[in-house]
Amino acid sequence: MLRLSRFLPSASRRGFDLKESLWSGSLTFQQAVSTSAGNLDENLSSKKFASYTVFKGKAALSIHPILPSFSKMESGGSRMNRNGSVMLTFFPAVGQRKYDYTKKQLFALSPTEVGSLISLGPAESCEFFHDPSMKSSPLNQPFCVSSHEGQVKKSLSITPLGSDSGYFVNITVLNNLQKTTDRLSVPITKAEFAVMRTALSFALPHIMGWDQVLTHHAAPLASSKPRVERPRLDSEWER
Amino acid sequence: MLRLSRFLPSASRRGFDLKESLWSGSLTFQQAVSTSAGNLDENLSSKKFASYTVFKGKAALSIHPILPSFSKMESGGSRMNRNGSVMLTFFPAVGQRKYDYTKKQLFALSPTEVGSLISLGPAESCEFFHDPSMKSSPLNQPFCVSSHEGQVKKSLSITPLGSDSGYFVNITVLNNLQKTTDRLSVPITKAEFAVMRTALSFALPHIMGWDQVLTHHAAPLASSKPRVERPRLDSEWER
Amino acid sequence: MLRLSRFLPSASRRGFDLKESLWSGSLTFQQAVSTSAGNLDENLSSKKFASYTVFKGKAALSIHPILPSFSKMESGGSRMNRNGSVMLTFFPAVGQRKYDYTKKQLFALSPTEVGSLISLGPAESCEFFHDPSMKSSPLNQPFCVSSHEGQVKKSLSITPLGSDSGYFVNITVLNNLQKTTDRLSVPITKAEFAVMRTALSFALPHIMGWDQVLTHHAAPLASSKPRVERPRLDSEWER
Amino acid sequence: MLRLSRFLPSASRRGFDLKESLWSGSLTFQQAVSTSAGNLDENLSSKKFASYTVFKGKAALSIHPILPSFSKMESGGSRMNRNGSVMLTFFPAVGQRKYDYTKKQLFALSPTEVGSLISLGPAESCEFFHDPSMKSSPLNQPFCVSSHEGQVKKSLSITPLGSDSGYFVNITVLNNLQKTTDRLSVPITKAEFAVMRTALSFALPHIMGWDQVLTHHAAPLASSKPRVERPRLDSEWER
Repeated sequence: MLRLSRFLPSASRRGFDLKESLWSGSLTFQQAVSTSAGNLDENLSSKKFASYTVFKGKAALSIHPILPSFSKMESGGSRMNRNGSVMLTFFPAVGQRKYDYTKKQLFALSPTEVGSLISLGPAESCEFFHDPSMKSSPLNQPFCVSSHEGQVKKSLSITPLGSDSGYFVNITVLNNLQKTTDRLSVPITKAEFAVMRTALSFALPHIMGWDQVLTHHAAPLASSKPRVERPRLDSEWER
Repeated sequence: MLRLSRFLPSASRRGFDLKESLWSGSLTFQQAVSTSAGNLDENLSSKKFASYTVFKGKAALSIHPILPSFSKMESGGSRMNRNGSVMLTFFPAVGQRKYDYTKKQLFALSPTEVGSLISLGPAESCEFFHDPSMKSSPLNQPFCVSSHEGQVKKSLSITPLGSDSGYFVNITVLNNLQKTTDRLSVPITKAEFAVMRTALSFALPHIMGWDQVLTHHAAPLASSKPRVERPRLDSEWER
Repeated sequence: MLRLSRFLPSASRRGFDLKESLWSGSLTFQQAVSTSAGNLDENLSSKKFASYTVFKGKAALSIHPILPSFSKMESGGSRMNRNGSVMLTFFPAVGQRKYDYTKKQLFALSPTEVGSLISLGPAESCEFFHDPSMKSSPLNQPFCVSSHEGQVKKSLSITPLGSDSGYFVNITVLNNLQKTTDRLSVPITKAEFAVMRTALSFALPHIMGWDQVLTHHAAPLASSKPRVERPRLDSEWER
Repeated sequence: MLRLSRFLPSASRRGFDLKESLWSGSLTFQQAVSTSAGNLDENLSSKKFASYTVFKGKAALSIHPILPSFSKMESGGSRMNRNGSVMLTFFPAVGQRKYDYTKKQLFALSPTEVGSLISLGPAESCEFFHDPSMKSSPLNQPFCVSSHEGQVKKSLSITPLGSDSGYFVNITVLNNLQKTTDRLSVPITKAEFAVMRTALSFALPHIMGWDQVLTHHAAPLASSKPRVERPRLDSEWER
């Protein structure tokens, strides 16, 4: 029988309502987000932030979705020019119920990586590799060479805990410049993984921009009067 | 063969359209919600309420979702400061088709508890324990000691009825001050559980605040002109 | 191997774009909806209609969702006072590709019946019984006796076609006054049932009113300043 | 163990952020969409476009959803007069990481075909046949004879790669006038298919128009005062 208890230190149900004194860093997570965001983008004044976080013995894992971006086309419409993602943030424990957010490690899941995670069977595992030289750029130059190339490489693996009881989520970050390797590992219960799977399945069409395409109902209605036939937009028979 | 009949006393398909005379308490459910809400929050004037209720022989179970709350950040954006939840309300039968709403017992499911419930296999069971001393507070002090501590403890268990035919949902409330133990139990058919599973899966990203993050499309579009590159917000490569 | 072909008379992919000449009745489906609606409700001027219809040899089956209704409370908020439903409309074939819409039979699925249908296993069947004397009323008197009582009884059964290839959907309408029994049966392919299951799963939280509760984000944000503590609305610890 | 790597040429995670130099055609995909759209519909000024694309060795496959269209009824409401669809666009590779978008082949999935695809078991396959003479028309004449009849026939097949590792998606286009047969085939990993299944399941209620029916909450609320009973709209008991 599965048992969940609010007496256990699993604090996943509390957004980020942790006391500041729990953090060894001087910034709370919210303040960090708020500050870095404020510097970069004046449009943030109306942005909303929400994460799902699981706090475990050696590290914590927080996930939050990131919207895709669209750019205007000459026709007046707009097209997605960068996929959204789901950001995983790991931060190590530095004492009982204390986590050091300044030592966080980030991993951004692409739509296909989200697809891999949500279709994972109970006994299956998966692994993703990221290299900053392959990062997509705001200038639409996906194959540009970043100054970080070769310096930092990241991998994320998700492996079953056994007996259909959840997964280990592990991040490894190799920094060739600093000659360091960071590893953080967070065990995820079956219930917590169900939350992630459901939240990621919900997020997927949104980070792909499909919700914006499909819920855009502002277009005036066609009149029901017969009209001169002309080549159909959106038809598979016109090229 | 599964048979559902509208002649049976299972009244789950009727929102709360029960005649007042069915209630032994002097308040209908709606009036109770409306009254208590009106006293506490002036913003309720535009709030909406909808529940799914199953009425059974010894007790009834009603579930409804509760929105998360966000607070303004200095940057002008906002962050979730309290998760939403799914509230289970149990109330005992006091006669044929009569239920005493004044003797109701409440149990609020956190996102992780919702995850546990929606991933429950046909032969699996789960159990959750709640203690008021662990309740999250509007002042962001999750570990504060409540004056109720130790007085009241609640547990919720969901156990299979057998032969893939549904579940028993049981609540036990121990009140040490009043030296009482209340138990209410409601059998849920497979069809009713399918409604709950679907509704809870729908509700989960909303009580986590993710729908508000992901459907917030008001941000102005990026221009398609090349621009000076600057550190990317939302990138896994910037810290 | 499953094969679907647009050459077959399965016209499910064409909303209601059937030529009027296909109908033996004098009204097209759209006109029928539009006319009956126009007489009853002045608010319909902005209503939208969309159905999913499968046309088969002996009969056609069309399904469309119906919104729940809310009523104002004294507090200014509103509560759901009648569940929505998913309406099934059957109409018999009266020739090749001709259907008589005036002989239609209706069956409205409640949320729990929708739950039963979407959780149906490949080899399972289900059956629902409706009696007009049990219909919910706009006056919130669910147990009132209708003048139709005993006159008309309806049942809907869904039974597997075998080999995981779909279902038969059958409606039987007994009219004691007219001493008639009408039966209509429509075979549904696995692909068509997948459309129905997905559409019904999408519709379910909407006909329960939960989407309106959960996507109502107009409430002003809480200020982040500490404030005097008061009993929490929505808490399981307050009664 | 499943492994996904960003070093591989699988570029599915990058919307359409491919350098123009990768394309042998003179138009990028976005420009093609923007131009053809601009000529046909003045309402496009607010339209949004987003696709999911997988680039493989011999060809690429891009999918994007297309909204249904509604027309005004005399009552003032509106009804769906053409289903939406999900468009598959195939284009062949003409070198390493070079694709010729001018040689694209289109295939528009109807709601039922989407239902077939999202219910496909790991070892199952499906096949769809399209003939332009059967295309739905903006004039609501589904059985009209197109001037293209018999000239072009298309088929799409989806077959398992084996060992639960994904599918082959194949398009064949027979052009009797030009005496040509074009075939394009794209292998889809299990993770990529999970993205498609999730995105198509999300899109399905939208291309059926159900989201517009179900999220249309503008109707004034019913007053809670008792009123004269009249025949219920949306009741299965009124005809």
